[in-house]
Amino acid sequence: MTTQPAPNSMSTASASNIQIQLPDGKLLTQPTETTAMDVALGISEGLARSVIAAEIDGRIIDADRPLGDFADDDSPVPLKLLTSRDASALDVLRHSAAHVMARAVMRLYKGVSLAFGPTTSGGFYYDFDLPEKISEDDFPKIEAEIKKIIKEKEPFERFILPRDEARSLCESLGQDLKVEHIDTGLADQSTVSFYRQGEFVDLCRGPHIPNAGKIKAIKLMSVAGAYWKGDASGRQLQRLYGTAFFDKKELKHYLEQLEEAKRRDHRVLGKQHGLFAINPEVGQGLCLWLPKGARVRVALEDFLRKELLSRGYDPVYSPHIGRVDLYETSGHFPYYRDSQFAPLFGSEVGGMLDAWSERLERGEIDADGEDKLIAAAEVFGVKLPDYKPSMSADKKREVLHRWQVEHERYLLKPMNCPHHCHIFAAQPRSYRQLPLRLFEFGTVYRHEQTGELNGLLRVRGLTQDDAHIFCTPDQVEAEFRATIDLTKFVLKSVGLDNYRIQLSLRDPDSSKYVGSEENWDRAEAALRGVLEQSEVNFNEQPGEAAFYGPKADFMVSDCIGRSWQLGTVQLDYNLPERFKLEYNGSDNAAHRPVMIHRAPFGSLERFTGMLIEHFAGAFPMWLSPEQIRVLPLSDKSAEYAVAVAKQFDDAGLRVTVDNNDGKIQAKIRNAQLDLVNYMAVVGPKEAEAGKVALRDRIDGELGTMPVAEAIARLTQEVKDRVVRQAVQSGVPAVAVDSGQTGHEY
Amino acid sequence: MTTQPAPNSMSTASASNIQIQLPDGKLLTQPTETTAMDVALGISEGLARSVIAAEIDGRIIDADRPLGDFADDDSPVPLKLLTSRDASALDVLRHSAAHVMARAVMRLYKGVSLAFGPTTSGGFYYDFDLPEKISEDDFPKIEAEIKKIIKEKEPFERFILPRDEARSLCESLGQDLKVEHIDTGLADQSTVSFYRQGEFVDLCRGPHIPNAGKIKAIKLMSVAGAYWKGDASGRQLQRLYGTAFFDKKELKHYLEQLEEAKRRDHRVLGKQHGLFAINPEVGQGLCLWLPKGARVRVALEDFLRKELLSRGYDPVYSPHIGRVDLYETSGHFPYYRDSQFAPLFGSEVGGMLDAWSERLERGEIDADGEDKLIAAAEVFGVKLPDYKPSMSADKKREVLHRWQVEHERYLLKPMNCPHHCHIFAAQPRSYRQLPLRLFEFGTVYRHEQTGELNGLLRVRGLTQDDAHIFCTPDQVEAEFRATIDLTKFVLKSVGLDNYRIQLSLRDPDSSKYVGSEENWDRAEAALRGVLEQSEVNFNEQPGEAAFYGPKADFMVSDCIGRSWQLGTVQLDYNLPERFKLEYNGSDNAAHRPVMIHRAPFGSLERFTGMLIEHFAGAFPMWLSPEQIRVLPLSDKSAEYAVAVAKQFDDAGLRVTVDNNDGKIQAKIRNAQLDLVNYMAVVGPKEAEAGKVALRDRIDGELGTMPVAEAIARLTQEVKDRVVRQAVQSGVPAVAVDSGQTGHEY
Repeated sequence: MTTQPAPNSMSTASASNIQIQLPDGKLLTQPTETTAMDVALGISEGLARSVIAAEIDGRIIDADRPLGDFADDDSPVPLKLLTSRDASALDVLRHSAAHVMARAVMRLYKGVSLAFGPTTSGGFYYDFDLPEKISEDDFPKIEAEIKKIIKEKEPFERFILPRDEARSLCESLGQDLKVEHIDTGLADQSTVSFYRQGEFVDLCRGPHIPNAGKIKAIKLMSVAGAYWKGDASGRQLQRLYGTAFFDKKELKHYLEQLEEAKRRDHRVLGKQHGLFAINPEVGQGLCLWLPKGARVRVALEDFLRKELLSRGYDPVYSPHIGRVDLYETSGHFPYYRDSQFAPLFGSEVGGMLDAWSERLERGEIDADGEDKLIAAAEVFGVKLPDYKPSMSADKKREVLHRWQVEHERYLLKPMNCPHHCHIFAAQPRSYRQLPLRLFEFGTVYRHEQTGELNGLLRVRGLTQDDAHIFCTPDQVEAEFRATIDLTKFVLKSVGLDNYRIQLSLRDPDSSKYVGSEENWDRAEAALRGVLEQSEVNFNEQPGEAAFYGPKADFMVSDCIGRSWQLGTVQLDYNLPERFKLEYNGSDNAAHRPVMIHRAPFGSLERFTGMLIEHFAGAFPMWLSPEQIRVLPLSDKSAEYAVAVAKQFDDAGLRVTVDNNDGKIQAKIRNAQLDLVNYMAVVGPKEAEAGKVALRDRIDGELGTMPVAEAIARLTQEVKDRVVRQAVQSGVPAVAVDSGQTGHEY
Repeated sequence: MTTQPAPNSMSTASASNIQIQLPDGKLLTQPTETTAMDVALGISEGLARSVIAAEIDGRIIDADRPLGDFADDDSPVPLKLLTSRDASALDVLRHSAAHVMARAVMRLYKGVSLAFGPTTSGGFYYDFDLPEKISEDDFPKIEAEIKKIIKEKEPFERFILPRDEARSLCESLGQDLKVEHIDTGLADQSTVSFYRQGEFVDLCRGPHIPNAGKIKAIKLMSVAGAYWKGDASGRQLQRLYGTAFFDKKELKHYLEQLEEAKRRDHRVLGKQHGLFAINPEVGQGLCLWLPKGARVRVALEDFLRKELLSRGYDPVYSPHIGRVDLYETSGHFPYYRDSQFAPLFGSEVGGMLDAWSERLERGEIDADGEDKLIAAAEVFGVKLPDYKPSMSADKKREVLHRWQVEHERYLLKPMNCPHHCHIFAAQPRSYRQLPLRLFEFGTVYRHEQTGELNGLLRVRGLTQDDAHIFCTPDQVEAEFRATIDLTKFVLKSVGLDNYRIQLSLRDPDSSKYVGSEENWDRAEAALRGVLEQSEVNFNEQPGEAAFYGPKADFMVSDCIGRSWQLGTVQLDYNLPERFKLEYNGSDNAAHRPVMIHRAPFGSLERFTGMLIEHFAGAFPMWLSPEQIRVLPLSDKSAEYAVAVAKQFDDAGLRVTVDNNDGKIQAKIRNAQLDLVNYMAVVGPKEAEAGKVALRDRIDGELGTMPVAEAIARLTQEVKDRVVRQAVQSGVPAVAVDSGQTGHEY
């Protein structure tokens, strides 16, 4: 619901014709006022009926906008018609649905002040200030009103006003929040756009569907509190969430998927099965891995460590803090300080100096304020004879920085790369040692907003399965291929084989990037070449590279069709430069290495959280915290049960014994509920024969067999890393928060 | 060189006799002025010649003190004569040697102001303020003067003065530091003691040797800067270090051992062999484990993890920070804050609030100061309407605490126990689940003084091989036995079999301890019983227990005879109480578990540092970062070398290939210098036969054999954890800094 710059319609407002180019290359010559809908009608009435919006050069527009508005030189306007089959059309539908919902609310309630109403990955919301409190009990009433509106099939009509007229209009409508937004957020715009649907008029950038009748399925989901522009000290609003589709079946599928996702919620399963806990006294977003969850993590770490060692990686360990100077060198400080914990100090006074210098940089302290701070610092015993409010900003910065350094300023590490750069630099390096591949399960800390935290999926302390490869430019292609192979292998090991790779390349504007054109060209060509040979679906995203290099992200679909951004591989020309890293080449001269960041899991927290949901808590054998439970029929077989368990344990299997009182049926039920993969039922008969009655959680009874046979069967399943549980469902994909692996390095 | 309370000589100053009891139980009746020397003379002249000092009830006294001074009731005075064979006599000798050294310095230099002159684990030092700078070039001159003094064999004479007279005496001697100490450090004493030796008079608590002739060997070691009373903002002094012995041979041994220790210095070896690095930009005391050092650590962690899992431990992981509230609950904050990093915050202003509340607690802020702080806080945007300088201290504390909590105050974790307590409490616990043994390689952070830092041995970030066992009081004995067994097993695995256990028990004063008398009695008896059965030397130290429970520390001798405090086992009745931990007993009622802290390595940093010195960098096979290096005779065999290396690698051995140009002799020499355990030399002959010429770093050539045979030999050595290098030397034990494992939990 933010507005756009005034369209550049004036430049082509002549009565002359424009050229329109269709996706198949066909050129049309049409009057400037021709719309996408007109073009569709020219092709067929059926097509016109299904047009939702249009796309020109990546920009989505209303189907009834004059195409002349988008012709800014003599080249043809590249037009793509969007129907319900195009992914971006759904977003247009949902934003229109938000307008319809707001309209219904305004019909039913008095004194509604509209805030913003954007779309989300699963639907849309609208924030309102209204005196009455809406509850879920009110949903049927609102939905009935929405359906009435949809039935009318009224069009969405766009109009433009100069800013002062727009302000007057909003005032006359009693929309004080919109007035405020025109005065502040839109202060630099000369005109703003509105959309009208019947009596409902809204300040809005658009685009919208042709008419409300396109909304075939809509549902209110929930209501929650929110703040005007996200400011917790600002006005409190009510946020009404909903979702909408082109088809009733799609809505049904979506609701089923939500139910399924709820059933698999890793926070619920994590608590139920004792996998992890988050405790307010320890801190929000800081995970305690309980024994069962920790066993899963140990299995994942062991697996990956072994794999990395066999693939020529070297282990390293680094501390969880570093001096702020380190992050000044790397460039991570102060630029990312909003997402970091505040610096910590050898002494407490440092914190004050830090707050001081930060506010000074922001220009928030005047001379009077500085005098107050100097006086306060002296109360703490810090004498500041060389600081004067009259000094230059540079001089102040220098003096404060010197004091901060004296007070030993550290940062809880937000990433491992600066430490690994120092490990590279700790010894003289020759080209013969490259590639040097340094890996560490490195825990990093980021101060995510409280509202963003989500179980293991978004946390404040995360352990990256991090590695940094230092190589020559010649080695980039081979190393990139090896990391893609590794990530594929890792995903396959947990049964994830439905994914695509997003290859992010640089923008044509070279000023936004570090590293030479030549290196970028070579690297991007190498990456593209590797992906073309890799038999993985991939798509290129020009302009989406980090400023330090191109990257490839694995977008993985789980078994209920949700998409997760997991493993990442990123090239880096920047850090080797900032840390002045060098190796001695075969020419006996100093060269700068290229650095590759990569993490196949992303983080242990997020990966485990995803696995819990993917497997609905029932891990495959090789990851399972409890692979087999021995169930004695009664106390009489307790001793044999312990002896059998010892044999499983000696074979390296994770085994327990159910030595509780109770019937065997109850023991089996408990083991099933606890998602134990196998059960070994033992009674006097089995004890005498040295056997167990083996039971599979999925397939049920497997018959009585010697202990050794059961062990062989289970250990083989572990060794082969068999994944039996995860079944791909037919539910359509829904985006999931891209999470923390996407964070740039 | 601190003084003692006035001796209670008045109470027994009558002319009557006293009774003296010798260690064999024999009772003597003697006049009150009888000295230990008199008693010795009464036994034999030879004994009198060798008497250095005496001990009464654990207190060391001069041999010429009247024993009547120590008879404070009718019971006999328990007298033990100390000769050079008693460990505590060496300390007396060295303190006297410090006086002799100070006397020599005062003879040679003008304007010497004496500070303090205590003993250290390896000798003694004296701090002086003197205008001239002493260098090692001056040592021969000073040592010559010392020898002159020793030759005179003058006695050390003690005398007592009232405080004002003592002050006048020091003033007349021009000893301004001593005057200051009488005014401040000794302000609460009515009399103080001095020792005179010839023209040298020193304020001193004693005791001393009978005369300087007892010093048979003395040597100045080094000179360094120091501060008066350790205050870096105070007067700068010169610290002269020396050592002294009863015997020239002992000095010679000591110097040899120092040389040996220097050769084994883990900081030098760590750099030379690329094991670890410490970088000022990352931070002092924060280790970067380089690939080779990290491989040693991976081997240690893998070994212990496997061992712990097989011994019924459960893995857990916890974050490296926790809210300060957590440590307030545990009691670790604010009591240990001097050895901790300052708290860190979600926002920067928190640091100032923290400095504020700390200084308020110390009474360092007056109302004027508070007004200044309130003004400064407002500059930072923190409004403090509910804080008034006129409020009560309790009210201020409450208000400040509320703000600190609002600002999300965290501590870099100084120990893992509070997190593990929360893991215990995260699920309902039944007696059937106990003992619950939670283990973690948990990195903790302590802000050790810069001057105390020492490579891997004393650091600011250390990874404890930590575990916490939660058990019933009945299980304490069995769990203690198991942890002692585990620690013995761990030490044996690295070839350390020379150790004793120090069992620290409680003081008779029960007010200093938490937990019931009954629990303590039972626990101490159980611990003693286990140690008696364990076939390990142990000694009991009454009064040395932590306030929360008795503990056992392993004091391990390395191969050059130095003693290290390593593994520790500590009982804890306190934390379960503070965290209100409970389990459901067999009686279906809630019970409080007992907690056992234990760490067989102590910390990975310290243990590895010790191992580097113990093995002089040459790790046994199972720990070695490079177990075998394949050396091709020339380029022609390079391909075969790589194929052979792959076979070793597939067998799980840590292998490299020397693919440099150069002669085989040079390759062998490099491998020897790099402390690689085995070399596999391969040429065309070996390639044809599928063999290697195996070479042992210690024993040299082992002959040519099939690759499979070499693999079998090496893997067996790894599997058996054979330790061949460490040889016990005959050098006498010298104490090493007890380090960071001794830190109480």
